[in-house]
Amino acid sequence: IYKNLFWAFLLLFCSSSPCTVLTLPVPTKSKEGAHGLGWVRSVRAQKANLFLHVTDGSCLQPLQIVASSESLTFGSAVEVTGVLKRSPHPRQPVELEAHHINVVGKCNPVEFPFKIKDRHSLEYIRQYPHLRCRTNAFGSLLRIRSEAATAIHSYFKKNGFVNIHTPIITSNDCEGAGELFQVEPSGQKPKEDENFFSVPAFLTVSGQLHLEVMSGAFSRVYTFGPTFRAENSQSRRHLAEFYMVEAEVSFTQSLEDLTEVMEDMFKSATEHVLAECSEDVDLFHKYVTPGHRVRPEIHLNVSLCCLFNKLDITYSEAIEILSRSSQKFVFPTDAAAVDLLVPGVGELCGGSLREERLDLLKNRLEQVGLEDAYSWYLDLRQFGSVPHGGFGMGFERFLQCILGVDNIKDVIPFPRFSNSCSL
Amino acid sequence: IYKNLFWAFLLLFCSSSPCTVLTLPVPTKSKEGAHGLGWVRSVRAQKANLFLHVTDGSCLQPLQIVASSESLTFGSAVEVTGVLKRSPHPRQPVELEAHHINVVGKCNPVEFPFKIKDRHSLEYIRQYPHLRCRTNAFGSLLRIRSEAATAIHSYFKKNGFVNIHTPIITSNDCEGAGELFQVEPSGQKPKEDENFFSVPAFLTVSGQLHLEVMSGAFSRVYTFGPTFRAENSQSRRHLAEFYMVEAEVSFTQSLEDLTEVMEDMFKSATEHVLAECSEDVDLFHKYVTPGHRVRPEIHLNVSLCCLFNKLDITYSEAIEILSRSSQKFVFPTDAAAVDLLVPGVGELCGGSLREERLDLLKNRLEQVGLEDAYSWYLDLRQFGSVPHGGFGMGFERFLQCILGVDNIKDVIPFPRFSNSCSL
Repeated sequence: IYKNLFWAFLLLFCSSSPCTVLTLPVPTKSKEGAHGLGWVRSVRAQKANLFLHVTDGSCLQPLQIVASSESLTFGSAVEVTGVLKRSPHPRQPVELEAHHINVVGKCNPVEFPFKIKDRHSLEYIRQYPHLRCRTNAFGSLLRIRSEAATAIHSYFKKNGFVNIHTPIITSNDCEGAGELFQVEPSGQKPKEDENFFSVPAFLTVSGQLHLEVMSGAFSRVYTFGPTFRAENSQSRRHLAEFYMVEAEVSFTQSLEDLTEVMEDMFKSATEHVLAECSEDVDLFHKYVTPGHRVRPEIHLNVSLCCLFNKLDITYSEAIEILSRSSQKFVFPTDAAAVDLLVPGVGELCGGSLREERLDLLKNRLEQVGLEDAYSWYLDLRQFGSVPHGGFGMGFERFLQCILGVDNIKDVIPFPRFSNSCSL
Repeated sequence: IYKNLFWAFLLLFCSSSPCTVLTLPVPTKSKEGAHGLGWVRSVRAQKANLFLHVTDGSCLQPLQIVASSESLTFGSAVEVTGVLKRSPHPRQPVELEAHHINVVGKCNPVEFPFKIKDRHSLEYIRQYPHLRCRTNAFGSLLRIRSEAATAIHSYFKKNGFVNIHTPIITSNDCEGAGELFQVEPSGQKPKEDENFFSVPAFLTVSGQLHLEVMSGAFSRVYTFGPTFRAENSQSRRHLAEFYMVEAEVSFTQSLEDLTEVMEDMFKSATEHVLAECSEDVDLFHKYVTPGHRVRPEIHLNVSLCCLFNKLDITYSEAIEILSRSSQKFVFPTDAAAVDLLVPGVGELCGGSLREERLDLLKNRLEQVGLEDAYSWYLDLRQFGSVPHGGFGMGFERFLQCILGVDNIKDVIPFPRFSNSCSL
């Protein structure tokens, strides 16, 4: 499927005179001929002609420009004026015969870190966080990521979920796991009694508690945004800042209700991405991650619910089985929780039914001396309380699953981890 | 328009036998009859009958339940089993004649801060951040906010923009305005040479620089997410954490291109919200903010581009004019930038063409001693540079404009400002 640039060109080709001007991204008309704007992704000399592939970033497929030999380099930005013609090449409907090429921005091929003939590895391009979007691989990744985000939002909208912007700065430690980032105005040392927010404030590790607030008024809510861990790790599986999809469903007392939504969302988002970004996904499967064992088509055929059965094994046994398996695997950690682990990626989803019994919560909070700090949480169970549960899915890990990308740093625009906060 | 709950009920009513069971949010069937789940929003006794309004949060319109007198309180959660009937009331197609009502979660009307007969002010309900979603007004606000987010994303998708998740944690100070939050692992005092990220790291004040990175590979990109200011203000116009929509357009050298996108986005999002959330918006205009002077219909008829003309006045004169005006107002701050100010709300949008001249940028960075820290920014102009520009719009201020809400704290689920970080 040819996207924006191509449709615009095709439309033009089929419907108008050769002296129409097309200026991308916003098409306009003048007397100078058709013209396109973009970056040179390949240069090939053949006899008297120069064949350029130019892209404006809207899709993987470039526009072919036929020019007389000129000094044009890989990576430069050009404005081409000429005549659109049917292409003799079967894989491209049109090509632009250039009358004039204006170099908008030069690119020195010696200094530019990406070379015209090389297929650079993800490791190599990762060294250039400010330039890697200019490679085919990372350009495709960013289009896929954008489309996957659309897919997540549309799944939830179609299924009656309200999108809640849960806060980034919070005074709660939802998971109680430590590894929090603390937040204070720059240039001020945090003191016990002089916080900007009057209490110590942290970057969120999960929107769960805030979704629980909402699940007292909406049957179905979700949030999709960044979460944080101050984990001192350089591993290929962890980031200090990563995206989570979290949902909370009210009036439910069964884990199956939750795994059904989890499965449905995973399938629906995967199908959407495969359908809308087929060329970009193909690039990954063919050239970037050709060794990717578990293909998304296989994922789709494996029902989480089928796999969800109460296995009477320990956590270590599960890990042992996982290490031998190339299939997705659901591991119930207790009576009311579920984790979905994927080989090579780690925990993709985790969900649970929430404790609704007021007395039990009250006792527990008193035991740990938090009954005042969490009195609001008790209030939720005091006024019109309903049974509810929810789950979270790591968005980067979802992308890793679909594309077979090993390192989580390669599926996020600007990765943050210990000792690294480029740009 | 009756949404999820109602369509489900209607469908059931029109298509199946009276002994079908509807369990919301996931409809299932059994032999017990139709049943609905939700929260009691009103209780009215009339002769032998009790009329309840029950909502599941999917829309403003409640489901009417007809029951024999039982002890049911405002705010409690109920599960109702009975028979769906056509309602004699013209404004509701169906009502549920209850055979059995199970109180899922009680609500003590004395302790519950919202009272059945009162119309609470936004100021009053703001005191209960964990419960205010249970009021009609804030429930409507959250549905409107969710739909407005959808509108923003669909506008950009339809217009060929790629969604970029710009980072929250950054080592840059985009606006150079100070008022940054610094980030360090909790329990560690930040030292000059021992940062988690090896450099001082802050919460983003704008995704602009990261979008500029992307505008070297994509013609059109946008980001929509939280941004931060450590502003020591309790004003009704400022938050420490708020949402921004930011877009960057490549291959443009005119401010008009940018104001066209700004205007188009504003109109399209406003129209979407007014169409999809008409009942919820009406609630605001009729009961919550009846004094709202500038209605969105008027906004839509005012073209930003018409107002955009080079006024030869000072900033103070502009402010003076603004204070007398009830219209939107565009104020050009220099030759290549534009701000859109709205009376009562403040700056709604700001945009500019970016400096692309390498020499000029280099000299300026050398002057302020930042040529090493921003060498990546110079690289953007060195390899295939193109002229580009962009703008940002405050999402909360957009909602304030549409709804006529005075205080920014009333249009965000969990407001953060100095001395306040509840929950």
